[in-house]
Formats: sequence, structure tokens, C-alpha cells
Amino acid sequence: VNRLFEAQGTTIFAVMSQLAGEHGAINLGQGAPDDEGPEDLRRRAMEAIEKGPNQYPPMMGVPELREAVGAHDNRFYDLNVDWQREVLVTAGATEALAAALMGLLNPGDEAILIEPAYDSYRPIIEAAGATPVNVQLRAPDWKLDEEALARAFSSKTKLLVFNSPMNPTGHVFSKSELEAIAALARKHDIYVICDEVYEHLIYSGHEHIPLMSLPGMRERCVKIGSAGKTFSLTGWKIGYITAPENLMGVIAKAHQFITFTVPPAFQYAVAWGLGQDDAYYRHLAEDLERKRDLLSKGLAEAGFAVTPAEGTYFVTTDIRSLGYDGSDLDFCRELTTRTKVAAIPISAFYAPGSPNVPQTLIRFCFCKQPAALEEAIARLKEVK
Amino acid sequence: VNRLFEAQGTTIFAVMSQLAGEHGAINLGQGAPDDEGPEDLRRRAMEAIEKGPNQYPPMMGVPELREAVGAHDNRFYDLNVDWQREVLVTAGATEALAAALMGLLNPGDEAILIEPAYDSYRPIIEAAGATPVNVQLRAPDWKLDEEALARAFSSKTKLLVFNSPMNPTGHVFSKSELEAIAALARKHDIYVICDEVYEHLIYSGHEHIPLMSLPGMRERCVKIGSAGKTFSLTGWKIGYITAPENLMGVIAKAHQFITFTVPPAFQYAVAWGLGQDDAYYRHLAEDLERKRDLLSKGLAEAGFAVTPAEGTYFVTTDIRSLGYDGSDLDFCRELTTRTKVAAIPISAFYAPGSPNVPQTLIRFCFCKQPAALEEAIARLKEVK
Ligand SMILES: CSCCC(=O)C(=O)O
Ligand SMILES: CSCCC(=O)C(=O)O
Repeated sequence: VNRLFEAQGTTIFAVMSQLAGEHGAINLGQGAPDDEGPEDLRRRAMEAIEKGPNQYPPMMGVPELREAVGAHDNRFYDLNVDWQREVLVTAGATEALAAALMGLLNPGDEAILIEPAYDSYRPIIEAAGATPVNVQLRAPDWKLDEEALARAFSSKTKLLVFNSPMNPTGHVFSKSELEAIAALARKHDIYVICDEVYEHLIYSGHEHIPLMSLPGMRERCVKIGSAGKTFSLTGWKIGYITAPENLMGVIAKAHQFITFTVPPAFQYAVAWGLGQDDAYYRHLAEDLERKRDLLSKGLAEAGFAVTPAEGTYFVTTDIRSLGYDGSDLDFCRELTTRTKVAAIPISAFYAPGSPNVPQTLIRFCFCKQPAALEEAIARLKEVK
Repeated sequence: VNRLFEAQGTTIFAVMSQLAGEHGAINLGQGAPDDEGPEDLRRRAMEAIEKGPNQYPPMMGVPELREAVGAHDNRFYDLNVDWQREVLVTAGATEALAAALMGLLNPGDEAILIEPAYDSYRPIIEAAGATPVNVQLRAPDWKLDEEALARAFSSKTKLLVFNSPMNPTGHVFSKSELEAIAALARKHDIYVICDEVYEHLIYSGHEHIPLMSLPGMRERCVKIGSAGKTFSLTGWKIGYITAPENLMGVIAKAHQFITFTVPPAFQYAVAWGLGQDDAYYRHLAEDLERKRDLLSKGLAEAGFAVTPAEGTYFVTTDIRSLGYDGSDLDFCRELTTRTKVAAIPISAFYAPGSPNVPQTLIRFCFCKQPAALEEAIARLKEVK
């Protein structure tokens, strides 16, 4: 059996969700809302199943959704996307990442990851025969060390995987950070896979700027979006890629042999969803900002040291302030089984052997109903 | 960009479906029904979207579907499947193949393919750094040359990909062919990925015997099934894998980083579907057998030399009898654009450079409404 996959653990999100289920914990681990998602999109998916088509849609995605993704990117970011050449629909952002990495990497290439890094990046890079090269953000303020990033490049560097707004840190990279990254990408003539699934989950005082919109980046960036995150329907598994035609060609070749197509009913519903007016997107962010504030305040009252989330639906906290001296993983296990609140240890976002792995930081997800957040806070206040 | 994927063409199924659409051809190319699929399953999917969950289901699939897959395998094939350890739900059979191949192969391994071979096998084997080794069936009677198969094995052989009922040939491998394959698999101690997506599309006088049910094969076979094929809902993209626990572990590791999960609503509907009584499965096959007979008779009348389909929803024909002297691909293009009936050239199921590639065989798909088949036959009678 494959040595690399064999060496992987089960993803921390599945592990903690299962533990949460077994112990009746409030699940602030895995990033997913605890409601059923917008009624209007669900109604449209139901109508599409009733009316059809329920057979294979086009391999690139249904034209309606591809056009809507292009229009979305042009409306919010002025990216001048030609949807007929530059948009692909995937089985969630996870498959988008797999298709992009497998489509762009050759064996022997290097791919730079910025840690903490989402846990699917590294195994797929390795499965493609390429080598991940890790650069660590400073914890817990998550600032980019530009010199460390510059040192990570070599003549073998083929691409960088970049995630903003960033899971698990909640960091939204600033214009000047983006410019530093873009300068290095241009200098070394690499591709950048931009995991921007949290693009609309942005809070007061912050702005999402796609890396693709910076000078010289349009032709080297692969932008990944997620209907699961933008419409609070994580189970639908609809992702999309915007990429220049010369990169899209080979990514689509990978996609056609990885999953081939994606259920049409959800594609039609998401196409409608993306076309909603600005109020939809504003309310999404405002609602989540209130939840962020609710949970952050509660965590602080419970004695956790909270790093403010600028975007995403995650808040990270330092458990040192609680006087706990075990690992972050043990803390999360105990929190789930005893306190009955599930969370995710940040160390799970680092490669084994990476330097400076934080051991005292954990991530809470706040895209939950206020009552669930209140109850979680009440339980967390018992920890101290 | 990745050299292997870059060298791939767009899959023939997408190419011919697009051409069919552009020219208003009756699409007997890509294997998909031309109706919306069973009302009862669709109703259940709609109810599940209404009621939820619409968020991430468990990574392995919802328990209801995993249990139903195990019960299905035990009911039809007496396989003694433990669904909690041995069943995984995937984003269609294409993802099942990708997860199984990526999970089992290491760079440097060899994987045996029996040509004509479905076109996603080879690129994924190559992407895993392994080498496909091709064995050709005799055309057009599609008999297995056991000696050629025996010669394909080497000390590097890790697995064989086996497809019965077989696309595109319609061949259902006989008990004695299965025994020959099983003997070689045991002798060389390899795995077999059993693409059995057409398991219920079997016609009079033939029987589907899963390779996994033969002595010594239970522990080395990875069985792949497809709700798209079994329930005529190809757009839903629900596949499933049955495999012994020691192989399932690593396949699930690949799956978790390729797509992670699959939409729950379709999983619940398919779980119900699999539990239907024998009459459902019998009617499915009987209905398709009538369509097979209708199309085969019409093709023969139109002058095509028809190889009887034992299973699947494909019939292959030899166009030599029509006096055409171009390639099978050119014939299919002309048939689509002029005669306005789309078909698939069998040469697309062979690796470039394979010996003995048939150039005069094309595949028609018959899972279409009788009126569409009748109209296609009328058009085909104009070709001669
Ligand atoms: C794909 S599972 C987890 C969802 C997620 O992005 C997270 O919790 O970090
Ligand atoms: C995955 S696209 C085509 C469906 C199919 O299996 C075929 O037509 O051979």
C-alpha cells in the first residue's frame, strides 16, 4: 500500500467530530455551521432534482455556475475572468486543491507551504512526488516573516500554496504582506494556489484582496472558492477554480480523472446563490462577526488568551493562560470528553518535524447558533 | 505543469458529448440514461435537502449508506462484509478508482490493465508514479488470453485493475476466466481493483460473479460500485468501495485528502435505493435488455456487425462491414456531425502505442428511451 498515505493519520477534523459525537460535546471543532443552510438555495436544489438533469453534467461544470463564478470574481475583484476558459467546478475545495496540485506539480518539484497549513495540502503534494517546504508564521500574532519566506525558495520551487483568510489563524493577509508574496512569486516565476474559501467571511476593518488581483499575478494564480463556506452548505461539496487558461487546461485534465463531474442540482442552486445582491454577502459577514464577538468574549471570560479573528469562522486561543501543561491535542481531547466542547489543536496544522510548532494553541469554530455558543461558553467557564 | 496530465487529451466522453450537443445528435456516446432517474430516489434526496443534514457528513460516508452497501454485498454475493470497517462512500466510481489507486500504489510499482480499458485508469496510475502494463483482450469476441495475462506479471506488479461487466465491450467475465485471473492474483500476491459498476446490468444467460467472492480473493480485492449505474442517476456521483480493513485504511486516507466527503442527501436516497426488493434489480436489467435488443437489431439492419452485449449498457459494432476505411474516431466524428448519432471509438480505450489496437470498432450506449433508439436507428440506416 502507498507509504505516504499509510503514514497519515485520520484527519483531525474527522477525529474530533467523531469524538464530539461519542461524548455529546458541542462541536466547535470542524468548521461547519450547525444549521441547515439557506432555505432559498435548498429550495432551488430540490427543484433541480425534481426537474433534472440528474445525469452527468459537463465535465467543467454547468455553464450557469461557471458563468456565475466568473461574474462573481469580476464583480467583487474586477478580475476580468472569461468563464468559458477560466472556470472549473470541483467536488468541493478539497478536490480543487487535489486537481490543482496534481495538475501543476511534477515529481521532484518543491511546493512552499505557510504553516499553520490546512492538512490536505501536504499529503497531496507528496503524492504528486513533490516536496513540501514549510515556512512558519510567527505565533500567535501570525505575521509573515518575509525573510523566512524568501529563504524557502529554490530553483526547484514550482508553486506556493497560499491561504487567506487563513485557517486556522483567522488572519487576513494585509496588502503589504500580499505585495511581498507577489514580489517573490514574480521573481521566482512560480504559480500560487490561492485557497480563498473564506473570501466572504471578513470582519470590520479588514478586506479580502485576492492575490490574483496584484500586478503580474493574474497569469500565475489559481484561485479556489467554496460554496460550502460562502453559503453555509458544507455538505454540498461544491468548489470552484478560477485560473488562467494555460493552467486551467492541465488542472481540468486532472479533475476529469479524479472525479470527472459534480452533481448538477447543487451547481444550479449555487449559481443562483452567487448572483445574490451585496446584502446577502454583508449579512453573512455581519452575522458571523457577532458570533465571533460572542465566542471571543466568552473565551476571554473563561480565561483563554484570544487572538482576534480577522476573517474565517475560527478563533485561536492560547491555553497557557489556563495553567494547562499538557499538549494542545491532549487538551482538546479532554475538553471534548470532559467539558463536552470540541476544539482543534493548532499543532495538527504543522508537519511532523517542523520547527517552532506551537503546543498551547487551540482553534474554536464560531459559525454556530448563539445558544450553542452560549452553552459552550458556560461549559468552558468550568475549566479554570 | 504536470507532464503526464498535460499529455492527456480531454476524455473522449466529454469530447463526443460536446460534439453531440453542438450538432443536435442523439447521444449514444457517453454512458448515461436520457431520463431523470427514479422518482422515488429523487423524492428522498429532496426530502433530505429539506430536512438536512446539509453539512459535512462523516468522512467515510453516512452510516445508513455504508450499512446498505454492506447489506447489498452480503445479500447478492454473500461476501460477509462488515460495513463499519469495510465500506467507504466516494464521489462517484471515478473518485473511488483514484482513491484506491493512489492509496495502494507506490512509485515504481506496476499495475496491469486489461485493454480495452476505461480511460481514467491509466492517468491515475501514472500520476501515482507507477507503470501501467497492458494486456489486450482478443477483438472482437473479447476473450481473455490467459497466457498473455500471465506474461504481464513481474516482481514489480502491485495490482490489476479488473472491470466486469466490462466497458466498452459488454463482456461479462465467465467463471473460468475469473478463476484464471484469481489464480494469477493469488500466485503473485497482488491486489485487484474490481470496477464492478455495471454489476446489476446483466442480461439473460449471464451472471455477475464478483472476483472478491472467489477463494483467496476476499482479502485482496477492492470492489467498486456505482449508484449512478445501479439507479440511473449518473449525475449524483455516488460511488462506494468494499475492501478488507487493511486496504480500506489507506484508501480512506487517500479519499480524505482527495474529496473528504460526499453530499449527504444523495447518500440517504441511495441507501434507501439499495434496500429495494429483487424486483427493482430485475426490472432494471429487463428494461435494459429490451433496449439492448432493440438497438442491436437496428444496428444489424443498418449493416453494422454487432457483438452481443452480455452486460453493461454498451454494444460494440464493427464498421468494416460498412466499407468505411477511415479510423474509428473519424467515423464517430462523422456519425455525430452528419448522421447526428454520437458513438465512442473503441481505440480511445487503448494506450498510445499498445499493439493490436482495433481501428474499426465503435461503441453505442443503449440506456435511452425507445423513441430515441428508434430515431437513432432510422438515422443509422441512412449511413450505408
Ligand atoms: C474538510 S473538514 C474541515 C473543515 C475545515 O475546513 C476545517 O475545520 O478546518
Ligand atoms: C465518466 S463519463 C462516461 C461514462 C462512462 O462510463 C462511459 O461512457 O464509458
